Amino acid sequence: MSKVVTFGEILLRLSPPSHLRLTQATSFDLYYGCAEANVAASLAKFGIPVKFITAVPPNELGESSISMIRSFGVEPVVITQGKRLGIYYFEQGASERPGKVVYDREDSSFSLLRKGMIDWESIFKDADWFHWSGITPSLSLDLAELCEEALLVADKMGLTISADLNYRPTLWKYGKNANQVMPNLVKYCDLLLGGADETEKVLGIEYNENDTQEAIFASWMKTFPKLKNIVTTQRIQANASSNGISASFWDGKNMLQSRKYNVSHIIDRIGAGDAFMAGIIYGLLTYEEDYQTALEFAVAAACLKHSISGDINLATVKEVEALMHGFGGGRVSR
Amino acid sequence: MSKVVTFGEILLRLSPPSHLRLTQATSFDLYYGCAEANVAASLAKFGIPVKFITAVPPNELGESSISMIRSFGVEPVVITQGKRLGIYYFEQGASERPGKVVYDREDSSFSLLRKGMIDWESIFKDADWFHWSGITPSLSLDLAELCEEALLVADKMGLTISADLNYRPTLWKYGKNANQVMPNLVKYCDLLLGGADETEKVLGIEYNENDTQEAIFASWMKTFPKLKNIVTTQRIQANASSNGISASFWDGKNMLQSRKYNVSHIIDRIGAGDAFMAGIIYGLLTYEEDYQTALEFAVAAACLKHSISGDINLATVKEVEALMHGFGGGRVSR
Amino acid sequence: MSKVVTFGEILLRLSPPSHLRLTQATSFDLYYGCAEANVAASLAKFGIPVKFITAVPPNELGESSISMIRSFGVEPVVITQGKRLGIYYFEQGASERPGKVVYDREDSSFSLLRKGMIDWESIFKDADWFHWSGITPSLSLDLAELCEEALLVADKMGLTISADLNYRPTLWKYGKNANQVMPNLVKYCDLLLGGADETEKVLGIEYNENDTQEAIFASWMKTFPKLKNIVTTQRIQANASSNGISASFWDGKNMLQSRKYNVSHIIDRIGAGDAFMAGIIYGLLTYEEDYQTALEFAVAAACLKHSISGDINLATVKEVEALMHGFGGGRVSR
Amino acid sequence: MSKVVTFGEILLRLSPPSHLRLTQATSFDLYYGCAEANVAASLAKFGIPVKFITAVPPNELGESSISMIRSFGVEPVVITQGKRLGIYYFEQGASERPGKVVYDREDSSFSLLRKGMIDWESIFKDADWFHWSGITPSLSLDLAELCEEALLVADKMGLTISADLNYRPTLWKYGKNANQVMPNLVKYCDLLLGGADETEKVLGIEYNENDTQEAIFASWMKTFPKLKNIVTTQRIQANASSNGISASFWDGKNMLQSRKYNVSHIIDRIGAGDAFMAGIIYGLLTYEEDYQTALEFAVAAACLKHSISGDINLATVKEVEALMHGFGGGRVSR
Amino acid sequence: MSKVVTFGEILLRLSPPSHLRLTQATSFDLYYGCAEANVAASLAKFGIPVKFITAVPPNELGESSISMIRSFGVEPVVITQGKRLGIYYFEQGASERPGKVVYDREDSSFSLLRKGMIDWESIFKDADWFHWSGITPSLSLDLAELCEEALLVADKMGLTISADLNYRPTLWKYGKNANQVMPNLVKYCDLLLGGADETEKVLGIEYNENDTQEAIFASWMKTFPKLKNIVTTQRIQANASSNGISASFWDGKNMLQSRKYNVSHIIDRIGAGDAFMAGIIYGLLTYEEDYQTALEFAVAAACLKHSISGDINLATVKEVEALMHGFGGGRVSR
Amino acid sequence: MSKVVTFGEILLRLSPPSHLRLTQATSFDLYYGCAEANVAASLAKFGIPVKFITAVPPNELGESSISMIRSFGVEPVVITQGKRLGIYYFEQGASERPGKVVYDREDSSFSLLRKGMIDWESIFKDADWFHWSGITPSLSLDLAELCEEALLVADKMGLTISADLNYRPTLWKYGKNANQVMPNLVKYCDLLLGGADETEKVLGIEYNENDTQEAIFASWMKTFPKLKNIVTTQRIQANASSNGISASFWDGKNMLQSRKYNVSHIIDRIGAGDAFMAGIIYGLLTYEEDYQTALEFAVAAACLKHSISGDINLATVKEVEALMHGFGGGRVSR
Repeated sequence: MSKVVTFGEILLRLSPPSHLRLTQATSFDLYYGCAEANVAASLAKFGIPVKFITAVPPNELGESSISMIRSFGVEPVVITQGKRLGIYYFEQGASERPGKVVYDREDSSFSLLRKGMIDWESIFKDADWFHWSGITPSLSLDLAELCEEALLVADKMGLTISADLNYRPTLWKYGKNANQVMPNLVKYCDLLLGGADETEKVLGIEYNENDTQEAIFASWMKTFPKLKNIVTTQRIQANASSNGISASFWDGKNMLQSRKYNVSHIIDRIGAGDAFMAGIIYGLLTYEEDYQTALEFAVAAACLKHSISGDINLATVKEVEALMHGFGGGRVSR
Repeated sequence: MSKVVTFGEILLRLSPPSHLRLTQATSFDLYYGCAEANVAASLAKFGIPVKFITAVPPNELGESSISMIRSFGVEPVVITQGKRLGIYYFEQGASERPGKVVYDREDSSFSLLRKGMIDWESIFKDADWFHWSGITPSLSLDLAELCEEALLVADKMGLTISADLNYRPTLWKYGKNANQVMPNLVKYCDLLLGGADETEKVLGIEYNENDTQEAIFASWMKTFPKLKNIVTTQRIQANASSNGISASFWDGKNMLQSRKYNVSHIIDRIGAGDAFMAGIIYGLLTYEEDYQTALEFAVAAACLKHSISGDINLATVKEVEALMHGFGGGRVSR
Repeated sequence: MSKVVTFGEILLRLSPPSHLRLTQATSFDLYYGCAEANVAASLAKFGIPVKFITAVPPNELGESSISMIRSFGVEPVVITQGKRLGIYYFEQGASERPGKVVYDREDSSFSLLRKGMIDWESIFKDADWFHWSGITPSLSLDLAELCEEALLVADKMGLTISADLNYRPTLWKYGKNANQVMPNLVKYCDLLLGGADETEKVLGIEYNENDTQEAIFASWMKTFPKLKNIVTTQRIQANASSNGISASFWDGKNMLQSRKYNVSHIIDRIGAGDAFMAGIIYGLLTYEEDYQTALEFAVAAACLKHSISGDINLATVKEVEALMHGFGGGRVSR
Repeated sequence: MSKVVTFGEILLRLSPPSHLRLTQATSFDLYYGCAEANVAASLAKFGIPVKFITAVPPNELGESSISMIRSFGVEPVVITQGKRLGIYYFEQGASERPGKVVYDREDSSFSLLRKGMIDWESIFKDADWFHWSGITPSLSLDLAELCEEALLVADKMGLTISADLNYRPTLWKYGKNANQVMPNLVKYCDLLLGGADETEKVLGIEYNENDTQEAIFASWMKTFPKLKNIVTTQRIQANASSNGISASFWDGKNMLQSRKYNVSHIIDRIGAGDAFMAGIIYGLLTYEEDYQTALEFAVAAACLKHSISGDINLATVKEVEALMHGFGGGRVSR
Repeated sequence: MSKVVTFGEILLRLSPPSHLRLTQATSFDLYYGCAEANVAASLAKFGIPVKFITAVPPNELGESSISMIRSFGVEPVVITQGKRLGIYYFEQGASERPGKVVYDREDSSFSLLRKGMIDWESIFKDADWFHWSGITPSLSLDLAELCEEALLVADKMGLTISADLNYRPTLWKYGKNANQVMPNLVKYCDLLLGGADETEKVLGIEYNENDTQEAIFASWMKTFPKLKNIVTTQRIQANASSNGISASFWDGKNMLQSRKYNVSHIIDRIGAGDAFMAGIIYGLLTYEEDYQTALEFAVAAACLKHSISGDINLATVKEVEALMHGFGGGRVSR
Repeated sequence: MSKVVTFGEILLRLSPPSHLRLTQATSFDLYYGCAEANVAASLAKFGIPVKFITAVPPNELGESSISMIRSFGVEPVVITQGKRLGIYYFEQGASERPGKVVYDREDSSFSLLRKGMIDWESIFKDADWFHWSGITPSLSLDLAELCEEALLVADKMGLTISADLNYRPTLWKYGKNANQVMPNLVKYCDLLLGGADETEKVLGIEYNENDTQEAIFASWMKTFPKLKNIVTTQRIQANASSNGISASFWDGKNMLQSRKYNVSHIIDRIGAGDAFMAGIIYGLLTYEEDYQTALEFAVAAACLKHSISGDINLATVKEVEALMHGFGGGRVSR
């Protein structure tokens, strides 16, 4: 079976229980996760052997974040250094009140990583796939360079490479814009998760707002010749409790479109994109050239994530497949 | 006032709080209940004197299950024996993720019951109605025979007899199919709760998929001449959080149809069928030949159950009647 | 900046957690609030300096209620007397099960207030606005007279005066009907929050059911010449979990109509009217003659309240304005 | 087996969880109980058939208090009337911080009872023992008269009568001192639980502080010739978390002394006196003239109560006997 | 570093929170653990590479128990089979109320294991130490034979073998007494944890109650010539909340005695013996022939376990060593 | 009445509930507090008008920390700046397991304060007392200079000045030792809370380990001539759950010694020193020259703090006085 490697930060998430606001909370529910960690855990839950590379501080919070990752059967490769685990406070939204993230992740142990600290050759040995996201190079120039170092090795060793562009403008604070950094990293990728609105801001490709999605993604492929597939998700955001979601898959020629799900009574929408990403990696590893099935698997995975507390998609392959085949939430499974 | 007797198992239900999945839980909310126990408790809440016959182990779990039953004013008749209370783990569904039941009920104290252990004559003295369900004879041949013993006595003593067919294929594991056992028990019944799809599998009656519901229920009555009324519920299962529900009543001539409720924001759908059963028993005891009103009461009761945590319908007659008369959840009662 | 004074009771609210019914609860969540206290806290959250006048007992419950008020930056003026803080038990509704309030507020410390106990001149010094509600005069004749005392002083000192009619028939138990008491108090008001159905029962004005809302509100203004503006809210009550809400503003000539919100997945609807009231006071203080904007602010505030646990609207001006401008709950704010 | 009747109020108890202070609480744990209700429930737990006579309001709080009583198998006889269930707030003490009770029980449904409302003849039929406490006559003159009414009937019908003097000075507020009321009620008693310091204040008997306990109790018996036995408990109050407890039994001739228990790590000391009272009633019903054993049973019961949350002693006869025979908490029972 | 293998069952533990009794619980805290699983997890926490061999059912409970084990970095080797995870209910004791275990572990997936199902050669490759306990052979004859199979292989492959006699009379129910089965297994052991009172009942060795502990342990060594060391713990059981603990180490010549700890304010005493066992294995692996230090490490580990909720000792080597060196709980570590 | 000003940081404290370890937590209880904030809140609870000067970030955590302070009636003076509220994780100790603090407070909003940002003249107007602690100058050179700025103004304006030396070696990380900074600040103080072991490390005064406490404190007064009184606390640290505490007061001539308390069953020992500090300030403001009474008040306050969750002493003057006069935790206050 293929072995996937993901690399990124793991954060402590603190959320008020029972839809309370941050200013009402007398306790916080505690989760650990972030983009690439979520992808790793979800893939492991799908039965894929996964390694997750990160850095945490030598304290109880660092230890707990790694225990969580290990509980899924993910193999962690950990640099223990620095002083703090990054935090994000998350207030669940409801109805017309949007969810809210307050970041407190600066100066984390992960943000202190730099080139030369990680033995990529040894990590990538026996691995088939490397996944990273745009969060990591947004955090520091050192991390952007470290990403490049990893990508060079992964590329040389012949791994399939995927990235989630994951553009968060507020994170790019070290003096570079995303589009000054990302193209140099994206060029190594076989698969991208991104949206048309990231074309210029992240990839530095000029485009016209009236261009079709097909045209835009074609321009991405032209700019990054190694790129084979592009996936993108659509969210029709009714309110904080109900959404419609669907996704598309561009293979360079055709734009495949997934089934659309109406997701009402949302439990937790954080990590839905990561659930999709894990789903598409699983799908491509499993269904190979059957892109439509891979896409349906990924969007069904993302749909199920909305019903699960925390950052990580706890759905199994069996559950995702049941939903793909039309068996949604309307019955009790006995 | 009429006294109802119900007979069946009572289980410990363990559920993660706050829509967590079973694999996330660090605590379980604890409820006690199961089909016939739920009917008994709901009837007592409606003000009907009820006896509940069961068996529990001589430990704290057995004691607690009986305390719960007693707290409703139900009179328990308990055989204390064996070693364990049956358990079911219940994971609440949400949106497109279905609810999930994991049974751990084998070798329970109840499953050790057999003929001769219960003094039916004394239990049925002063009683007017006996209710049982298809769960009990599914558990063992001994229990099927014990059901027959009870039914013979109840029939002889002139009680009205009702049953909920409650077909759960995974429970029939002792070598008999439901339709080898149930017809011999159903023949004593005056009232059945069941669905057309149980015609062959449970009742052993051949039918054609294109038959109308009227034709099917007419064939039931032909096979079981004592049968006077058949009730059935319809659930349009949008997802784990929203359903439409309605019900019908066949009196041998007419198929009465209830109002249809859209039940969104479901709190807990376990026990909705038992709430309906208690509602129809209450309705027939109260409104007698006014079957339409009895049916409306039962379906409103089932509707309210979806808004109540645990297995048991805690709605009062006044609350059910308010909903029947159109006063739903849209106001605050002060 | 303008200083607002509100006067009223503060109650202890006890609610079962997690949508449990009152008869299931093994714990109660604890909130403090009531009409005018909620208005005061919401205004303070909007950044308006506010005083809140009340009475509480000399015990821990009284102390806690005042701590809560103070935590918002409201300046409390407290008469410490009597023996008990009024209580209301609140059972959250869900789906077709309505929410339920059980009052236990008689003989509270607040209900013992009477004329002469409060130094209104000193309280109203530096203040621009006085707000009260129909709850207070419903509780006792002494409180009705105390309201009148306050209104005379406020009127003399030139404050803008607003009232929420807040008609709760079950509270008027001391031998007077609302329409025997309220007109004498309403005559001092510049702004009223009320509904057409309160015309006769609260204001003692005869009307014809077929009259337009414009005609009815015109009759109010005729009866109470000081009245400048009337606001009213519409609630389309789908069920306990989903509502539509909107509001109107009558300035004596035009009936302005607000945007309509579909509020699904309600967290807590108690205090939505108070959130609206605080919103309209903030709106008029801020947008002055721009009544439409004031109205939109108020109804957006009321909409957000439905997503917030407890009696008090914790939304900020920035959040209300975001919703007014169309940024609802469908995104995560990072 | 003997049937015991107890008569008294049942209160709602609200306590902050986890040793929080009342002013810190964001939730309250909820228990129901009070002196005579606690005695009734403990006796039922010991296997004694018990009736409990009380009054509650026609609302969910009243209903829940009766459900709790019923869950023990106690047969409630309930007058449903009035508007409120009495409340007490209880803050658990710890170390050098004493526990704290805040009463809010005035105007309760129970306090509205008066002579002629209860059919004592029918209640006492088949009963052997009547138990009451000094709480009830402290609440109103009507209740004192109702106690007398009950005692006259019980005495006439030949029941054994016991009382816990339970002197709480703050409750006697209706214009009579305890010693103007209690002697007229105590004169019907066979068994009293009280302390030497209640001699004058409750029983109106003059005494000298230097008198021995024997002399004092002899004077009680002289004043109340029907009295056969007096029990009293000693508490050496180290702090809120650790106590020493023991008890004595005066049979008119000898002062029997119990074993002394060191009770550390107290979970909840409310109801320890009621646990003792239930223990001595059980002891006398079971061990009859073996007063020493009855006393040891009662004090072991009281000791165990300190390890149990809530007002009610949940210890079984087997557990109390184990402690009596020296098997304390130092092992795990498997 | 040495690799340890442990083999045994893992159970679901359900405990009421906050010292509630089982009959009061409305929720259960959920832990996974049992003797050998606890030893494995504690050793992993000490930094020792560990494998844990067990069997669990193919459901969420089985999966969760393995996730827990994995979260410590233990490598699980799992047979997935059967239908249920064994359960034990644990009621925490307090003061004079003993803790209480209610077992519901029959017919578990683990109990279905038998010879030939496990590839011991492959498991023991690279391992230095094998640990088992007397729980496993008590459950079935098949499991006793499977133990023997494992021991034969471990012995042949030269592993150090340790056992905790862990005698629980209520578990030996399949027709053999412990002393008919255990000697045949104990004969392979290098290290035993046991007590003098197990001499006859478990090991089948006759002894005189007046014999010294030295004499008794000498007789064990005579009977089982492979045995090198015997450890035993002493518990002076004041009550459920306070204990004194110490331990001894017999090396065939000398009886080493540990420091004695007074353990007050016990949080959870389940697993203290397993913490000791893990401590002595760690101690012997680390301090080798310095038995006194190994013993002090083990008893300090057991002492710390009493302050930790759940079955598993979460103390680190650094924390255990701090306590060994006299730095107990009296300070805050910053 | 005198107005006290305190100045310092306020932190978010995150603690696992129910004595769980940090690595076990699935939720954190949330408190706000730190040295000078705790002193401010306790003084306000004692009825003293207090201002608290601090800096917090413009987010929900900053807002909540100030709401908490305001809920006590403290008047906050807040600089809103920077990006994060400092955090400390606190794991409650138990028995022989020490409590544990993990700091994550670097780069907090407070740590960005520097000279010139605060208008001390206006803050100290109407104030009589200024309190600070050694935590603040340990955080940065800017903060040390800001302290000096405040002290110069306070001294010039004639306020009484107190400091708690509060030496935490791990906090002094900016290149200066405490004794290079603190003497220059301590020289303005009238009252110090400190211990003999801080003589050299904090105050830079050489001393001999064999010197008496009197001699040491005399040397402090010689070095800092403005100093009038020195208080010090003694803690005999039995374990994490039980302590003995007492305190002394040196007035330059006599060493007054307080009563000694045995504090068992500790709920939370964080903030006991701050409770003492608030107690001694209250004591000196109230009892003036009666140093013994002031000292007894302070140590009784510190004793009570151990029974209260969170950083802040919630004891009232009445409660502290009751303990001073011998009424400890051994009774229930009704």
